Amino acid sequence: RTLRIGLIPGDGIGKEVIPAGRRILEALPSSLNLKFEFVDLKAGFETFEQTGTALPDKTVEVLKNECDGALFGAVSSPSKAVKGYSSPIVALRKRLDLYANVRPVKSVATAQNPIDMVIVRENTEDLYVKEEKTYDSADGSGKIAEAIKRISEKASFRIATMAGEIALRRQKTREMGLPSIHKSPLVTITHKSNVLSQTDGLFRSTAREALAAPKFSSVGVEEQIVDSMVYKLFRQPETYDVIVAPNLYGDILSDGAAALVGSLGLVPSANVGEGFAIGEPCHGSAPDIMGKNIANPIATLRSVALMLEFLNEEAAAAKIYAAVDANLVEGKFLSPDLGGKATTTEVVEDILRRL
Amino acid sequence: RTLRIGLIPGDGIGKEVIPAGRRILEALPSSLNLKFEFVDLKAGFETFEQTGTALPDKTVEVLKNECDGALFGAVSSPSKAVKGYSSPIVALRKRLDLYANVRPVKSVATAQNPIDMVIVRENTEDLYVKEEKTYDSADGSGKIAEAIKRISEKASFRIATMAGEIALRRQKTREMGLPSIHKSPLVTITHKSNVLSQTDGLFRSTAREALAAPKFSSVGVEEQIVDSMVYKLFRQPETYDVIVAPNLYGDILSDGAAALVGSLGLVPSANVGEGFAIGEPCHGSAPDIMGKNIANPIATLRSVALMLEFLNEEAAAAKIYAAVDANLVEGKFLSPDLGGKATTTEVVEDILRRL
Ligand SMILES: CC(C)[C@H](C(=O)O)[C@@H](O)C(=O)O
Ligand SMILES: CC(C)[C@H](C(=O)O)[C@@H](O)C(=O)O
Repeated sequence: RTLRIGLIPGDGIGKEVIPAGRRILEALPSSLNLKFEFVDLKAGFETFEQTGTALPDKTVEVLKNECDGALFGAVSSPSKAVKGYSSPIVALRKRLDLYANVRPVKSVATAQNPIDMVIVRENTEDLYVKEEKTYDSADGSGKIAEAIKRISEKASFRIATMAGEIALRRQKTREMGLPSIHKSPLVTITHKSNVLSQTDGLFRSTAREALAAPKFSSVGVEEQIVDSMVYKLFRQPETYDVIVAPNLYGDILSDGAAALVGSLGLVPSANVGEGFAIGEPCHGSAPDIMGKNIANPIATLRSVALMLEFLNEEAAAAKIYAAVDANLVEGKFLSPDLGGKATTTEVVEDILRRL
Repeated sequence: RTLRIGLIPGDGIGKEVIPAGRRILEALPSSLNLKFEFVDLKAGFETFEQTGTALPDKTVEVLKNECDGALFGAVSSPSKAVKGYSSPIVALRKRLDLYANVRPVKSVATAQNPIDMVIVRENTEDLYVKEEKTYDSADGSGKIAEAIKRISEKASFRIATMAGEIALRRQKTREMGLPSIHKSPLVTITHKSNVLSQTDGLFRSTAREALAAPKFSSVGVEEQIVDSMVYKLFRQPETYDVIVAPNLYGDILSDGAAALVGSLGLVPSANVGEGFAIGEPCHGSAPDIMGKNIANPIATLRSVALMLEFLNEEAAAAKIYAAVDANLVEGKFLSPDLGGKATTTEVVEDILRRL
C-alpha cells in the first residue's frame, strides 16, 4: 500500500520536527509493505505574511483530493491582533471535518506514577466556531465583544461514540496482555452544565445517550465538571482512561495532562475525520528555541504513529511507539526539555536505530 | 466597629464549615475592637426544593441593605438538569456586582516547593451571563444549543486594575519583611485571543491598557494563552504572583492551582465589589462527606480572613492567617483530606487556641 502524506511544517520548530516525521516514515522496515509519497504544503503565520492567507486553498484542495493523511507542525500566533489573520489549524480541522482531536498522554513503563489516558476533544465547534462581534455599550462605558459557543447534538454524539470506541479498542489491547494500569474501560464526560445548562447540558446528555448504546455495555461512564476535572487530573491522574470533552475544555485539559508527563514535547495528537487523519504535536511553534536543533521530536514521531493508527496501519504505529519508548527508557539521548543534552537530530537517529 | 455578616451555609458541608467561620469571628481578640452581628440567610439547592428558588429575594435584599459582608458555603448541583434551577452563587455575584473573585493559593512556609499566587477572576460576565438558546438544526440532524460569551471593556478594565492593585499590595507586604518567593510584582494576563480575537482580544488589550497606568509602573506584566497557562501552572508554579483571567478560565485555573497545594479544602476566595465582600471556600458541597464532621474548615477560615481584608480589617485577617498556618505547620490536627485524622471541630478548636 502506498500512502500519500501532506507535510505542513508551519512556523518555528514545526520546520524542525516535521522533517523528523518524514524520516521515520521513510525508515519503517520494508517488511511492513508500506510506501510513502510526500507533498510539501504551506500554512502558518509566515505563509500569511507572504501570501495574505494563513491557509492557502491549494493546501486544503491537495489534502482533500490527493492525500491519505498529513502531518502538521505548529503555527506562531502574532503577539498583537493582526487584521485578517486567523489560525490555519482551526480552519483546517473544520474544512476537512476532522471532528475529533485525539490526544493520548502516557508515561513510560518505568514511571513511578504511571498514567495512561486519552483525551478525545471535539474539534469543530464550541467557541471555535469563531463567530464574534463587537459593539459599543449603550451606556457609553466602552466596547463589548461577544462570541458564540455552539454545541450540537450531532457533533456531541459522534465524539462520544468515538470516545467509546477508543475505550473498547484500548481494552482489547490490554487483553492482548500489554501492561496497563487500567482494569476496565472508562469514559469520563467533561462539561460545565451547572452553569451552561443548555450547551454543556446538551453535550452531557448526548454523550450519555451515545455511550448507552449496547456496544458500549462494558464501558464505564462517569462525569466531571471541568474545574473539578482539572483538579482531579492532578490529584489522581492514574484514574483516567478516556476523557471526552467539548473543544475548549479538551484544549485546556490536554495541555494540563501534558504537564503530568514532564513535557509538552512528548505529547502527540491526531485530528481525525472519516478516513483521514492529520498528526500534530501538541506543542506550539516555540520561537524561543527555533533554529537551534534542540526541539524534542518525540511529540511529532508519536503523532506519525497516531496518524498511522487511524489509517489502519497499526503494525507500523506499534513499531514507532516501541522505538520511542525504548529511547525514553534508556534515557541516553534526551532533548533539553527532558533534562538531556541531545540535539533533535541525535534523538531522531537514536529512535530510527531502534525501529 | 461593628460588622454585620450574612451567613449563607447553602448545602452539604457548607452547613459544617460556615458555623466554623462564625466561631472564628466570635473568637477574635477583643484588643481588635471589632464586634460582629450575624444574620442567617438561605440559598442553595435545598432552598430551591423548599421554596422554588435557589436564591430568595430576601437573601439579596438583606445582604444589600443590612450587611457589611457575608460568608457563603457551597451549593449542590443537581445530578440531572432541573427545570428552573440556577446556581445561586453565580446570581449573587451578578446581583451584588461583586465583580472580582479573588483566590489566593499559597503553600505553607515549610513547603518544599513553595508557591504563592493569587488568581483574580472576573466574576460577572464571560459565559456566566448564561444567555443560552436551543433550536433544531435545519438539516434535521438534531438539536443545537448556543451560549453567549460576553466580554466588556469596562469589566476587563476594572478586574485588571484590581489585579494590579493586589500586586502592589502584595509587594508592600513583602517590603515589610514578610518571607516571600517573589522579588517583584508580576501580573499574568490569561486569555485565548489566538482563537477568540474579539472577546479575549478585548480582554487582553484592555488589561494591558489598565496595567499601563503610571501607578503600576513597578508591576511586571506578561501574558499566557490559557492552555499554556495550565501547563505552566504545573511546571513552574513558583513563577506566578497575580494571575488575572476572564470568568471561566479563572474558575478552571483556581481549581488547578488548588491541586498544587494538596487540597481544595485549603483554598479560600472572596467575591469582591465596591465596599462589600463575600468569603467563599473554593470547594463544593461535597455530598460524599457531608454530616460526618470531617470537612476541612480551613478554606472557610481563610475566606473569613480574606473577607476581612477587603473590609479593611487587615489586622484581624492577619491573626486568622497566622493561626491557620501554625495549625498546618505543626500538623497535629489535620483533616482527612490532608492525610490527618482530626474532625472539623478539632481543627477549628486547634486554630481558635492559636488566635
Ligand atoms: C494554536 C491553537 C489555535 C490550538 C487550539 O487551541 O486548538 C492549539 O492550542 C492546539 O491545541 O492545537
Ligand atoms: C458552583 C459553580 C457555579 C461555581 C463557578 O463555576 O463559579 C464554582 O465552581 C466556583 O468556582 O465558585
